[in-house]
Amino acid sequence: MNATGKVTLLSAGPGDLDLLTLKAAKALARADVVLLDDLVNSEIASLAPQARVIKVGKRGGCRSTPQAFIERLMQRYARKGLDVVRVKGGDALLFGRAGEELAALRRAGIPVEIVNGVSSAFAAAAGLGVSLTHRDHCQGVIFVTAHLRDHSEPDWPALAATRMTLAIYMGMSRIEGLCATLAQALSSETPAAVVQWAGSANERRVTGTLGTIAAIATQAGLGSPAIILVGDAIGEALSLATFDAAVETHGAALPVLRSA
Amino acid sequence: MNATGKVTLLSAGPGDLDLLTLKAAKALARADVVLLDDLVNSEIASLAPQARVIKVGKRGGCRSTPQAFIERLMQRYARKGLDVVRVKGGDALLFGRAGEELAALRRAGIPVEIVNGVSSAFAAAAGLGVSLTHRDHCQGVIFVTAHLRDHSEPDWPALAATRMTLAIYMGMSRIEGLCATLAQALSSETPAAVVQWAGSANERRVTGTLGTIAAIATQAGLGSPAIILVGDAIGEALSLATFDAAVETHGAALPVLRSA
Repeated sequence: MNATGKVTLLSAGPGDLDLLTLKAAKALARADVVLLDDLVNSEIASLAPQARVIKVGKRGGCRSTPQAFIERLMQRYARKGLDVVRVKGGDALLFGRAGEELAALRRAGIPVEIVNGVSSAFAAAAGLGVSLTHRDHCQGVIFVTAHLRDHSEPDWPALAATRMTLAIYMGMSRIEGLCATLAQALSSETPAAVVQWAGSANERRVTGTLGTIAAIATQAGLGSPAIILVGDAIGEALSLATFDAAVETHGAALPVLRSA
Repeated sequence: MNATGKVTLLSAGPGDLDLLTLKAAKALARADVVLLDDLVNSEIASLAPQARVIKVGKRGGCRSTPQAFIERLMQRYARKGLDVVRVKGGDALLFGRAGEELAALRRAGIPVEIVNGVSSAFAAAAGLGVSLTHRDHCQGVIFVTAHLRDHSEPDWPALAATRMTLAIYMGMSRIEGLCATLAQALSSETPAAVVQWAGSANERRVTGTLGTIAAIATQAGLGSPAIILVGDAIGEALSLATFDAAVETHGAALPVLRSA
């Protein structure tokens, strides 16, 4: 226990505990309290043997722990002088309300440390064996959430106009509509893929095009949480014809391996 | 030594060895040969005690090890049955020619494993203590390289039209021009920051706006390698007025800490 407490916003990565950073493992080892999000692999608690572990998930807005309560909880434990680790899936600084939690902690005068991690879209690309930004195809990648606070849609035509790879988070509930919209702005032949539970032991993936991927993913039974990848750079995965349009489990039968 | 060799494309993260993943550390520990890019912290060799370490950097195109030579080198060692680890800065699947190297290894029939890591823009955001995608401000983030193969420019107006956070890699040599172009499409008051050597012991950062950041960064002596961050979400850092427009070293005097 420290003389003065603090909060660590810790990135848990995509699921596989081996994808935690060394820094994250050290922070967990010294934690007094661990607050776990819903989508985080709960086995992470094994890395925090001294800690009281509290689940504070709020998936898709239902049966949730209110955000304000989570923020109060962090502050209460930190004010007791405890080392509080707030665990978020992927990288804590991409989606997931880190901005609001940082602001609340700052207002309360509580020191915050941030530990980065691997975001799911990177793990999804690794599973497919593709670069997110193959320079034959694009100059960058866009990470966008399809789940907006006001239930509106991202500006898909503006995103398409950049000609960059799209890594779409939280888009499975509207995959058919968003692929149709993107197909109008790009082409229905544009390569696309869906990777569910990317970077975890349960990883499943399918590949296709903007015209076919929604049906392929649905038929294969893929749902949230998943990353939808769109763009010519993703076509490098399609050229691995052995798993085109087929569902593969983590690392199986692929020329590109993910696990040792 | 394995009966059949393989190549691991390994993400070294932004510099701090503690930001390597556990999986990366394990891969290095068993490596026979390590091929190191220029911008990778060379202390990483200490994690690969059995390995022959070869530097194959090619910074900005000059005095470079030709790409074709690097690809042949990987293949030659893998064919000898060796465990070859190709180390790239940040995440191997964002910029840095992983796409070309994967394609070449596939053509050669050599098994490839990919190990993800932390890309510099995430470390830059951590240093500033901001989310890349604070939902009060944006729906996502764009990772774009300013260094294009044909020496052209990215389509800055199209990127600005998405209203997303921009994380610009390799843009320091043209920071004045690109900020001026972006200021026309957005506003010269749009928050901006530059973080040099993000996520390493040498990290330095300045904050400002599209109208001021080029001069501030130049005056502070910041150059490559650095990430330029632009967007309203970055304004959350500016509200930490204590370091506005000032150069800070890694974690010093900030209410948000990065290191334990």
